[in-house]
Amino acid sequence: MRLLDDIADIGRDARRGGWSRHLGDDAEWTLRAWFTEQAERRGLAVETDVNLNLWAWWGTPGPGAVVTGSHLDSVPGGGAHDGPLGVVSALRAVDELRARGVVPARPLAVVVFAEEEGGRFGVPCLGSRLLTGALDPDRARDLRDPDGVSLAEALTQWGRDPARLGAEPERLALIGRFVELHVEQGRALAPRGEALAVGSTIVAHGRWRLSFLGRADHAGTTRLDDRRDPMLPAAATVLAARAAMAHHGDEARATVGRLHAVPGGTNVVASRVDLWLDARGPLPQTLVDDVAAAAYAAAADEGCTVEVRAESVSDAVTLDAALADTLAAVTGAGRLATAAGHDAGVLAAHVPAGMLHVRNPTGVSHAPDEHADDADVEAGVRALADVLEVLCR
Amino acid sequence: MRLLDDIADIGRDARRGGWSRHLGDDAEWTLRAWFTEQAERRGLAVETDVNLNLWAWWGTPGPGAVVTGSHLDSVPGGGAHDGPLGVVSALRAVDELRARGVVPARPLAVVVFAEEEGGRFGVPCLGSRLLTGALDPDRARDLRDPDGVSLAEALTQWGRDPARLGAEPERLALIGRFVELHVEQGRALAPRGEALAVGSTIVAHGRWRLSFLGRADHAGTTRLDDRRDPMLPAAATVLAARAAMAHHGDEARATVGRLHAVPGGTNVVASRVDLWLDARGPLPQTLVDDVAAAAYAAAADEGCTVEVRAESVSDAVTLDAALADTLAAVTGAGRLATAAGHDAGVLAAHVPAGMLHVRNPTGVSHAPDEHADDADVEAGVRALADVLEVLCR
Repeated sequence: MRLLDDIADIGRDARRGGWSRHLGDDAEWTLRAWFTEQAERRGLAVETDVNLNLWAWWGTPGPGAVVTGSHLDSVPGGGAHDGPLGVVSALRAVDELRARGVVPARPLAVVVFAEEEGGRFGVPCLGSRLLTGALDPDRARDLRDPDGVSLAEALTQWGRDPARLGAEPERLALIGRFVELHVEQGRALAPRGEALAVGSTIVAHGRWRLSFLGRADHAGTTRLDDRRDPMLPAAATVLAARAAMAHHGDEARATVGRLHAVPGGTNVVASRVDLWLDARGPLPQTLVDDVAAAAYAAAADEGCTVEVRAESVSDAVTLDAALADTLAAVTGAGRLATAAGHDAGVLAAHVPAGMLHVRNPTGVSHAPDEHADDADVEAGVRALADVLEVLCR
Repeated sequence: MRLLDDIADIGRDARRGGWSRHLGDDAEWTLRAWFTEQAERRGLAVETDVNLNLWAWWGTPGPGAVVTGSHLDSVPGGGAHDGPLGVVSALRAVDELRARGVVPARPLAVVVFAEEEGGRFGVPCLGSRLLTGALDPDRARDLRDPDGVSLAEALTQWGRDPARLGAEPERLALIGRFVELHVEQGRALAPRGEALAVGSTIVAHGRWRLSFLGRADHAGTTRLDDRRDPMLPAAATVLAARAAMAHHGDEARATVGRLHAVPGGTNVVASRVDLWLDARGPLPQTLVDDVAAAAYAAAADEGCTVEVRAESVSDAVTLDAALADTLAAVTGAGRLATAAGHDAGVLAAHVPAGMLHVRNPTGVSHAPDEHADDADVEAGVRALADVLEVLCR
């Protein structure tokens, strides 16, 4: 898979392993330049929209367009395929269509959505949420990265106008069908012996930030009764999240993968601990309510306070049934529900959106061990080309 | 307190509050330059030793020297006095001695020990431990800061030879008596109505790093039975540390103020969590053994492993009795035991070392609310000058 090899050294994370590519970091800028060059080599016209999504057009942009693509950013220390596989496969499907002599009867675009993982500014599917209006631009401008830099400040630094951020209904209205190819997350296809699947549903999911406030003091001199240590209720909340996941059934997920203590000194009782709860399942809010109740109780026990804030919430999505039928008919692939969020899920509220999943034999995702075999990747490219050929008629 | 005001803007930490001044950061370099200038203005000859400690000599360096000082670095988000008060008071005591027309009969030095808080490279009292040989220079060279930079690399970057790091018995042998003035940590003097106290003992203390290893995976797609999430045993260990503190008696302390999840993504099950346990009390190792046992059990429950490593361990110290008697006789102050570590405690194994504590009316330490009233600071300067005048005879 030559194109994936091209970008294999961009954004490698020596400390975490894997790749870290986040909106506006060196790696992500390099990937944007690389995508632009690759698209232009193919005769596609590239533009960056007001929300930092990249669009590469084959033919004049217009209504009824067939759009495919995914994202190039990663989680911190993520795998090589989550995101880039969909972009690379889209470019290679364009090559395949040209090789077949296909002349699309409709406009075709390859899209790269910005900050799908929310790795820098915390809100996943940032670009597609802004495009569709699912994220208020005022809120988006005020999102802050771990260094305290707001998205508005970052945009200004990149010479872009933060005031222009927000929904683009005219652009959205051009999309006739959207298809996102993505590496499988989880391990359902290997036992089935199938290389590909058509996306059916995306589970409801969201991110909640819990901020515990206590009082900083000396780790050696502060007596037990005088402590208001936010690390204690934070730890209790991590355990409560696991208990809630077990309690809410097989499809429930509750994860704390990010936790930040302030000031973070070894010999200092923390003044503040922020942790992020990733919750998914049929009723994520109910699960979060349980975890929040445990957090409030543990905070009160320690003389701390806690603030619970939803950073992003996505309802369950059923991808377009007619489009899924077309994808299945063209590719012969079965169906697959996913517990991972996708830009296709955000777009699905506005346009017919579908997904193709490529087998991940390890089942590992958001980590360097994520994988796709070359043969499966090639099968994905051919399937996507077949689909685009049919949809572009 | 003019000199403290001089440095009040150096190393302010807007995010954490208070001050962050760590070995080799901009603030710490600025403070070194400031100290050098202040000492030279007073006619003192300043040298940096091979372990990055600063020495400002009044008179020719020689045996039987009277040495006073403290440190200029801070914990992350620390207070204004912890460290700098001892250095500033030493400089002002020199002024006071000159104003009194005192001509010391012995060499007198003001010392600034490097990285007392261990805020960057993890080992507290780094400079004094290296000077005395309490820390092996090979181990020191390989200490790493949160960005993965080793002390050896940092020294090279500063144009210094890492090979020269290590014990300086000749320098140590020059010290006849060492006196460190320090802001009180805890709140014992306010109820007593006393501005000053003479240090009596320093409790045994140490830092242990617990590294939990699991497996990174997708927060949404990974089923409960497939998870090996190191955040779970880490959280259980935070709670176990508090339980051990309660169990081991009034003087026991166990704190987790620093915790680092890798890769640290909201939608990623962590692959690794490091946490640091600060433990103090009559038998800190026993307490740590209890916490480690809980950590091993919790890690095994989650299919994770844990590695426990002592990063620094300091036995209980009784400060020199004769010197303490002298300090008490000269100042009229009572005695105070401390649960905080100090360079004086490291030096006490080699030379007569004593401490003067200045009342902290808030009792808060290692945090911006740490405080000392101006009148108490002035009393501390006069007391230190009185002590130095007597010791230099």
